[in-house]
Amino acid sequence: MSLAFQIHAESGAARRATMMLPHAAVETPVFMPVGTVGSVKAVPQHLLEELDARIILGNTYHLYLRPGHELVRRMGGLHRFMSWERAILTDSGGFQVFSLNELRKVTEEGVAFRSHIDGSSHFFSPEHSMDVQVALGSDIAMAFDECTEYPADYARARKSLDLTLRWAQRSRDHFEAHKHERPWSEGFEGKMPSLFGIVQGGMYPDLRRESAERLVEMDFPGYAIGGLSVGEPRELTREIIAATLPLLPKDKPRYVMGVGYPDEIVEYAAMGVDMMDCVLPTRAARHGLLFTSEGRLNIKNRRFAEDQGPADPKCDCLVCRRYSRAYLRHLMTAQEPLAAVLNTLHNLAFYLGTMRRVRERIEAGLPVTDLKMEASQSA
Amino acid sequence: MSLAFQIHAESGAARRATMMLPHAAVETPVFMPVGTVGSVKAVPQHLLEELDARIILGNTYHLYLRPGHELVRRMGGLHRFMSWERAILTDSGGFQVFSLNELRKVTEEGVAFRSHIDGSSHFFSPEHSMDVQVALGSDIAMAFDECTEYPADYARARKSLDLTLRWAQRSRDHFEAHKHERPWSEGFEGKMPSLFGIVQGGMYPDLRRESAERLVEMDFPGYAIGGLSVGEPRELTREIIAATLPLLPKDKPRYVMGVGYPDEIVEYAAMGVDMMDCVLPTRAARHGLLFTSEGRLNIKNRRFAEDQGPADPKCDCLVCRRYSRAYLRHLMTAQEPLAAVLNTLHNLAFYLGTMRRVRERIEAGLPVTDLKMEASQSA
Ligand SMILES: [Zn+2]
Ligand SMILES: [Zn+2]
Repeated sequence: MSLAFQIHAESGAARRATMMLPHAAVETPVFMPVGTVGSVKAVPQHLLEELDARIILGNTYHLYLRPGHELVRRMGGLHRFMSWERAILTDSGGFQVFSLNELRKVTEEGVAFRSHIDGSSHFFSPEHSMDVQVALGSDIAMAFDECTEYPADYARARKSLDLTLRWAQRSRDHFEAHKHERPWSEGFEGKMPSLFGIVQGGMYPDLRRESAERLVEMDFPGYAIGGLSVGEPRELTREIIAATLPLLPKDKPRYVMGVGYPDEIVEYAAMGVDMMDCVLPTRAARHGLLFTSEGRLNIKNRRFAEDQGPADPKCDCLVCRRYSRAYLRHLMTAQEPLAAVLNTLHNLAFYLGTMRRVRERIEAGLPVTDLKMEASQSA
Repeated sequence: MSLAFQIHAESGAARRATMMLPHAAVETPVFMPVGTVGSVKAVPQHLLEELDARIILGNTYHLYLRPGHELVRRMGGLHRFMSWERAILTDSGGFQVFSLNELRKVTEEGVAFRSHIDGSSHFFSPEHSMDVQVALGSDIAMAFDECTEYPADYARARKSLDLTLRWAQRSRDHFEAHKHERPWSEGFEGKMPSLFGIVQGGMYPDLRRESAERLVEMDFPGYAIGGLSVGEPRELTREIIAATLPLLPKDKPRYVMGVGYPDEIVEYAAMGVDMMDCVLPTRAARHGLLFTSEGRLNIKNRRFAEDQGPADPKCDCLVCRRYSRAYLRHLMTAQEPLAAVLNTLHNLAFYLGTMRRVRERIEAGLPVTDLKMEASQSA
């Protein structure tokens, strides 16, 4: 049940730790790039390695539909299938399934939904989500939860939380009974994947408290704070995180799902969050939005047409060392596929570099929030 | 007027030489990847370098329209703009302009045409094409020619050839008067770009002979055979190349434009062709067509869904060393942008590797055509 999570240093509420996963030692606080369908979009794996990414996120819903978890299992698991030997965290599929507003139906048993690809019918239960995640072979699986929509009134949030708590227990029971069926047993003797619980409860602190307490009783090796970044104001996100973190065990990793902007990930790390993920750096990159130490750049802007400087003068990524803003703008304007490759590489370098600086500040006992000022120019 | 072209070895009609261009020593026979608008589609420049590509082709028509040759000149030329310090050859724009059937009008002076992007009006003359290519800063520029359509009757081919010959003289005069205006003078003292003439004449050997003889009188540092791969049967392509090559100076590079399949580039190298280019390996890659030592693969095919082998068991490119056919198929099926990156890298590795083996065979005095049998499985 336990996951090696060694805390090396603290600075205020922030912690600098190493999480020992079967496929990698992950230095936290960490930002995890999103690799939705077995690829961090547009980036070859060896360049992700050069960025020193140690863990990426895979989406269970997408991988279940295509190429299918049983195929991935037969191929030796997701690590081997996509040739990524470092760590992988998978979400439960719940968030995506609940996003299919018109196409899904929730019961006590689980969620019936239709594929966004071909309209075919499918059913996810906590047990099925665990089966899929075990077949994919993630290092960290996530409990199957209902992501409460925003806004939701108290009664609705209460009802949703109760369901999520029953599903958390079912997730945990099924995962523990089947985790040894992971596809990467060879060379990993005794190493097992871990299942994290997910705190829900909408925007109600007492429900968040109850959720956290009940999950802690179930004794997960790590805890996520879910149901955020669903449209609520950012101040509310911060409040819920602040109210929930003290309820979670200090000696286990704490993960806020689906955040955020560069200054947000600095802020949450300063508050004591260990893990974060977001599609923002990769998705924005494909639309020409670059995060830099000088703020956000819409690289398509005409003002960059003859700008010979790098995307970010303070960045030493392979894009900033080699290419000009003028060239990056040209690639977007001409709709060249290289635009997505280079923009994504830079944005990930910026996010991973930001978290590296966060870790360095914690090690040095310096306040992390000082970094936020710098990062906030990008927000 | 001269270009250092040192022939090291011969095997039959094939020659193994080094062409000393301002930006690179190019080992021939060479296949030049096409980088239409300042990017070999989907491939970062440092990975092109890892493939040992020494020269790439840029399209004058596309670069003129976007980002514009004057902008490229202000950015220090195409090499600096796209961060490619090795050699670049640019076509004259003629081929693309003539492909705009509905949108162009040819006169003695040049060609009026409308942009395929926004319908705006433009005019290319031999002089303007030279100005654009000098502004881009190519190592090798091409004369502005009329690419005779196929089929064309004798009178039409005759008339088209005469125009091309007058344009060749105008191209040469203007280029010689302006080549010193190249944007990369610094660090390249005394080094100048070269202009190649282009043999036309349709599918008529006597016109091809006249074209070659007249161009040789004009004394270009290299010669291309144009107007091929325009829809004619491949046997005819071969015949025209065979009839034209002996008419060109042995001590200068000979370039066949716009070819071809892997077995074709081997065949033409065996006949004594030194340079070739084609969009085939890059364009086919984006559609999931892979060239391998075991033949062409449509990687989208369901039979590769669980194929754990590499795209080509004999290829040691970074794609074949790391990824399975099953994964490459998944990337295509899921429409992941990484598919184009990886497929293109492999296809270019296959083409450049094929030419490397051609060069090795010539150096060893072995018949080059033996390689064709192997490559022809891919055709
Ligand atoms: Zn950068
Ligand atoms: Zn390969």
